[in-house]
Amino acid sequence: MTPAGRAESSRLRLARAYLNRVAEPPAPALAALVAEQGPVPAARAVAQRRVPDAVAAETVARHAEDRAERDLAEIATLGGRLVVPEDDEWPAWAFACYHTPQAQADDRLCEPLALWVRGAASLAEVADAAVTVVGARAATGYGEHVAADFGFGLADRGFAVVSGAAFGIDGAAHRGALAAEGSTVAVQACGLDRAYPAGHAGLLDRMAQRGAVVSEYPPGIRPAKHRFLVRNGIIAALSAGTVVIEAGARSGARRTAGLAGVLGRVVMAVPGPVTSALSVGCHAMLREEQAVLVTRVEEVAETVGRIGDDLAPPLPVPARPTDGLSPEQLAVYEALPARASRHAEQLVGESGVPLARVRAVLPLLELQGLVGCGADGWCRTREVARRGA
Amino acid sequence: MTPAGRAESSRLRLARAYLNRVAEPPAPALAALVAEQGPVPAARAVAQRRVPDAVAAETVARHAEDRAERDLAEIATLGGRLVVPEDDEWPAWAFACYHTPQAQADDRLCEPLALWVRGAASLAEVADAAVTVVGARAATGYGEHVAADFGFGLADRGFAVVSGAAFGIDGAAHRGALAAEGSTVAVQACGLDRAYPAGHAGLLDRMAQRGAVVSEYPPGIRPAKHRFLVRNGIIAALSAGTVVIEAGARSGARRTAGLAGVLGRVVMAVPGPVTSALSVGCHAMLREEQAVLVTRVEEVAETVGRIGDDLAPPLPVPARPTDGLSPEQLAVYEALPARASRHAEQLVGESGVPLARVRAVLPLLELQGLVGCGADGWCRTREVARRGA
Repeated sequence: MTPAGRAESSRLRLARAYLNRVAEPPAPALAALVAEQGPVPAARAVAQRRVPDAVAAETVARHAEDRAERDLAEIATLGGRLVVPEDDEWPAWAFACYHTPQAQADDRLCEPLALWVRGAASLAEVADAAVTVVGARAATGYGEHVAADFGFGLADRGFAVVSGAAFGIDGAAHRGALAAEGSTVAVQACGLDRAYPAGHAGLLDRMAQRGAVVSEYPPGIRPAKHRFLVRNGIIAALSAGTVVIEAGARSGARRTAGLAGVLGRVVMAVPGPVTSALSVGCHAMLREEQAVLVTRVEEVAETVGRIGDDLAPPLPVPARPTDGLSPEQLAVYEALPARASRHAEQLVGESGVPLARVRAVLPLLELQGLVGCGADGWCRTREVARRGA
Repeated sequence: MTPAGRAESSRLRLARAYLNRVAEPPAPALAALVAEQGPVPAARAVAQRRVPDAVAAETVARHAEDRAERDLAEIATLGGRLVVPEDDEWPAWAFACYHTPQAQADDRLCEPLALWVRGAASLAEVADAAVTVVGARAATGYGEHVAADFGFGLADRGFAVVSGAAFGIDGAAHRGALAAEGSTVAVQACGLDRAYPAGHAGLLDRMAQRGAVVSEYPPGIRPAKHRFLVRNGIIAALSAGTVVIEAGARSGARRTAGLAGVLGRVVMAVPGPVTSALSVGCHAMLREEQAVLVTRVEEVAETVGRIGDDLAPPLPVPARPTDGLSPEQLAVYEALPARASRHAEQLVGESGVPLARVRAVLPLLELQGLVGCGADGWCRTREVARRGA
């Protein structure tokens, strides 16, 4: 980069850092202003309070708070960076989903002005092949097992695992991906100077090493209910599809799935015991056709994968030697006792098949290795009997 | 009934008892002959071998076996009866499903010529409000629990529970219905002189007291693989819908569900843990859209019930005091700490809401009982804090 280019990049980043703090996301009027004027003129206009009323309403409360340089210095000391839409690694393709009429009509959804990031992974690369896995905090052992299994399997197939770093399903999915030495991304609802939940500080540090920890919120901002709502949109937007593993009747995971649907992403749900309160949300989504049922990582890969690319192999179905027999052949075969011989004439009554047909069918069954013929008549072959046909 | 009527009824019953044994079900050519000529002439024609080739093929193997009087005497000593289509209790309305083009194209499906029945229940009345419950023999504790729960709940709502009396899911569903003192019907794939499985002899006796044990097969006929296939059709035909609770990748329950689909019945499947091999069949049916997901008896009743008659009540969803707040109101509320007071000015930065709006919003939150105002400023109300808003 030329010195002029570096200076321009630095101005851009300072402007976006300022704009990112000056309005509480989502701030659609401010986003529109930035799209129209560019970040540097927009930042100047906001600071000088020369903006349309809608932008003023979003920015007036904090317009004087210019901590951009301090925020950028702080994220640097955390080993992180501010990623802006002008950067190559901005997941522009993924975030296009914020600009559909359906998403723009939703007041929880607006493309972020910038993202604070800890971790070496490029956001654009991550979003290119990613799956979101979310679910209940108070998960059951079953749910955590499935989440870890899905996290591992998805990472193992080259998908980044995106989630919210919460206790329960989120954490298990992140850990599964780390165990597979894959990429995993946590999206936080607070500044990256703190870990949320605090008990996952170590997990978040490990994710920053192998994937990324991301937030729309500048350093110092604390987690709050409305921020989780907005954060959930980013979790859904960053991947091709969202899998819900365990969700109560009312749950944040279900709301994330709802946002994924609004953003045009595939929504998947893992079923569980109908006796479990923590599967009620998943089953409700499936009954209401808001989600596709998935039971295995292969099915998730098939659902989000490019067509023909990741087809789930069918489950092996145990075959029986009597498969493919016609009803008449089966009736004759079944008329033979398991461990004794019979002559053709003796099979007529039991099978209900005429003698001429019994005589025609028995050699066909013999050709298939199902019956043999001895001195006492016809009998089931030993091997078939052992295999429990 | 007049003496002439009794004699006619007796002739009919003898003819159908003979026809019922002379051909191994399904025998569509014989059924067509009976429909065309009536049972008494048809029986005479078969006994004298004056029948079209297709009927001859179905009946030649056993045409000389006239055990009709002995069979009727034997079912009487078992406390049972032969129910024929000419009887009021014949489930004609239910069995109309055998006569659709789709069902007639299926070589496992043909309306029975007669049914052997033990039990006081009228088949027509049973079939008028019935649900079929089937599933794996080697069921898990989870599956048996759900089957017993569904059997009880369906019987309790006035549905007869139809199943196959097998070990596992079938038995648990029957037992659940009996526990509710409801009606339950077992369809056997053998003569009613024996119990199948033998371990369920006591259960079958109890069902004969409170519901019915039914078979298309005359006394003396032993259970065999091809008979279970045909029997499964009757299990599906006798009810408005079939619920599958646990089924492996390859299972008889899934085949029964397939027949229910061909017969135009509603097919339902209960999900389970994705880690359980015994839920693989249910999940496959749901993924392939061959079944509707059900988790509760209310949902089964709604699915099979008459429209508007049995709507499942929605599950209770826990409400939170902050439900229904606008994003701006939620941002202001969230800006208040859990256990301290703040003045309106202090909420501007944290909430990102302009001071004029903060001042407008706080009294609205107070009206809803969410915040209170004291000497130190505004605070969350104690009760709301306790309820974990």
